[in-house]
Amino acid sequence: MQITELDTPALILDRKKLLANIERAKACCRKLGVTWRPHLKTHKCIEIARLQMETPEGPATVSTLKEAEYFARNGVKDLIYAVGIAPHKLGRVEEINRLYGADLKIILDSVEAAEAVSRWAREHGARIRALIEIDCDGHRSGLVPGDPEILRVAAALRDGAELAGVLTHAGGSYNVKTAEELGRAAAHEAEAIAGVAEDLRAHGFKVGIVSAGSTPTLCAAEAAPGVTEYRSGVGTIFDLFMHGVGVCEIGDIAESVLVSVIGRQERKGWVITDGGWLAMSRDRGTASQSVDWGYGAVCDAEGNLLPDLWVVTANQEHGIIARRDGGPIDQRDFPLDRKLRILPNHACPTAAAFDRFHVADGTEQVAVWRRINNWEW
Amino acid sequence: MQITELDTPALILDRKKLLANIERAKACCRKLGVTWRPHLKTHKCIEIARLQMETPEGPATVSTLKEAEYFARNGVKDLIYAVGIAPHKLGRVEEINRLYGADLKIILDSVEAAEAVSRWAREHGARIRALIEIDCDGHRSGLVPGDPEILRVAAALRDGAELAGVLTHAGGSYNVKTAEELGRAAAHEAEAIAGVAEDLRAHGFKVGIVSAGSTPTLCAAEAAPGVTEYRSGVGTIFDLFMHGVGVCEIGDIAESVLVSVIGRQERKGWVITDGGWLAMSRDRGTASQSVDWGYGAVCDAEGNLLPDLWVVTANQEHGIIARRDGGPIDQRDFPLDRKLRILPNHACPTAAAFDRFHVADGTEQVAVWRRINNWEW
Repeated sequence: MQITELDTPALILDRKKLLANIERAKACCRKLGVTWRPHLKTHKCIEIARLQMETPEGPATVSTLKEAEYFARNGVKDLIYAVGIAPHKLGRVEEINRLYGADLKIILDSVEAAEAVSRWAREHGARIRALIEIDCDGHRSGLVPGDPEILRVAAALRDGAELAGVLTHAGGSYNVKTAEELGRAAAHEAEAIAGVAEDLRAHGFKVGIVSAGSTPTLCAAEAAPGVTEYRSGVGTIFDLFMHGVGVCEIGDIAESVLVSVIGRQERKGWVITDGGWLAMSRDRGTASQSVDWGYGAVCDAEGNLLPDLWVVTANQEHGIIARRDGGPIDQRDFPLDRKLRILPNHACPTAAAFDRFHVADGTEQVAVWRRINNWEW
Repeated sequence: MQITELDTPALILDRKKLLANIERAKACCRKLGVTWRPHLKTHKCIEIARLQMETPEGPATVSTLKEAEYFARNGVKDLIYAVGIAPHKLGRVEEINRLYGADLKIILDSVEAAEAVSRWAREHGARIRALIEIDCDGHRSGLVPGDPEILRVAAALRDGAELAGVLTHAGGSYNVKTAEELGRAAAHEAEAIAGVAEDLRAHGFKVGIVSAGSTPTLCAAEAAPGVTEYRSGVGTIFDLFMHGVGVCEIGDIAESVLVSVIGRQERKGWVITDGGWLAMSRDRGTASQSVDWGYGAVCDAEGNLLPDLWVVTANQEHGIIARRDGGPIDQRDFPLDRKLRILPNHACPTAAAFDRFHVADGTEQVAVWRRINNWEW
């Protein structure tokens, strides 16, 4: 069937762009001599994960324990849950490992957490593998390279709790303004995490995994000595924000929301669609970049950009399309039910509004892939 | 069980606040002498709908056909799908009416749409009831009061297509700055839609439903002569944005996201939780109001506001809590796994990240109510 026959709004995934983006990430990892541990949080879909991972058993990264359970149930064993552990979740971690024979690893960044994990492992006779989270650019969680607390955290992992490695995420790279800055962020991320690993080893700790990565830094890194793996996620799909960061072309964006024209306001030059902010998400990340795309870039049903237009504003189930220059739209071009495809600011929250991807070659639907959402199972 | 035993993030609904908000909306409608046709798009949950509706069969309002199908399957018959119809959806509308004996009405605002609906009804031997959408304040869809096109749209509804009434939504009321402005918006909305109904009747059209409403205008309306019903939605739950509009207290907000402390950055004065923007939504509506709440207001597990704090920024699965004044947080107050409840900027997208409400009296869970999401079924 043709995707234009779908009810709208519907989430479309361009198969060829997806495959090309995956190939590109793999090539970047080959160049760096590292393993790719794709972050699956953007799509939460086993079919896409299998196209990304080196083997059906992983490695891979997840952002929730529901993702971990879902991917483990589908055969993925080598997983990192890359959000700092809350100790009450350890029972779930252990359950996933036991039920599915998985090796789901956790991350932590304090002696308090390491002691809680060690205590839990001892009390439950369990083995839990943990990575120490490092903050390479001050943007979120983790210990700063050189902080003596890192050694204390490593030492506090005992009994069933084991040090599996170290991990960082150069989230600051999302806000760089130039290719030079991005190159520096990528080099700094790799040097920072490799340095922490070396320091731990110099103090007698065994450090297996040295994990770095974000989509921008994987795209920009020239070398990553001492790093064993990269964990990029959104770059499998790409979006307008990543285009603004300078790491993809608009033509690389594999995800779009198919919408229908449901009305017009001729006096205002508006075309109104059924793709509102619930479908596009409230993400307005491009508002802080050099080109603001509103709630999304407008393409025709074939996926060709209509560069004069943007989704200027949105309500829950209404997207309002206008010309970027404020001029009139030729209303005859937009009859009721005309299909358009809207490229998202941010692939992750847009995809999270949907329960399936309609996979397309051109406008032909070639598969429907389910995804998961939420936290409870 | 206690909600503090739940895995996090989890969506909490305070039962007493919910019931009080529903009582308040009903009292407003009684005062105005109108029917309440609650908009169910905020919660998409039959248990909440049954507490709102005058009868188990409605009336009610929905924003997607998936909601219409879900509520109709659960016995709701008198429904308005309050988003302009795309003609390709008429088959679904007819199917819902046929399968469940529902009276799902549509809205439209052009001769093009009215003719498409009439043609479809004729070709399928179906009866479709439609309301004409009126734009009372220029914020989105609909025909402007006094536009002669309104009469042409009414005349274009024929064969199986029937004029069921007129409808408007004073979405502009979300952006008012004073109680006086809000009062004027409420009066204007009611006068505008009642005037359109009178004009249609003067031209020989039968107008049954005269539908107005938004949460702010329902709260503010002093009288609504000629209006038959109000369709408020978010006011059943309320949120920080509605508090900023001036129509509720923070203590009225019935929805919160239960989160756990997963880390801290002492040097920055940050407490990090597992309530990121995927749970809170990317909605930053309060950024344009007099008090910006970041990604949410912070309460203790009992629901008491901690007024010095806010969720200053967020990543997909991380919420970063800081003091509003930038000062240090006493880290000893926030051990790992401490539970907090975050009040949302906007109840609708926050609830849409979850598949169920944990209904609580105080901190005791008294029920779990499922909700629906997405568009396809």
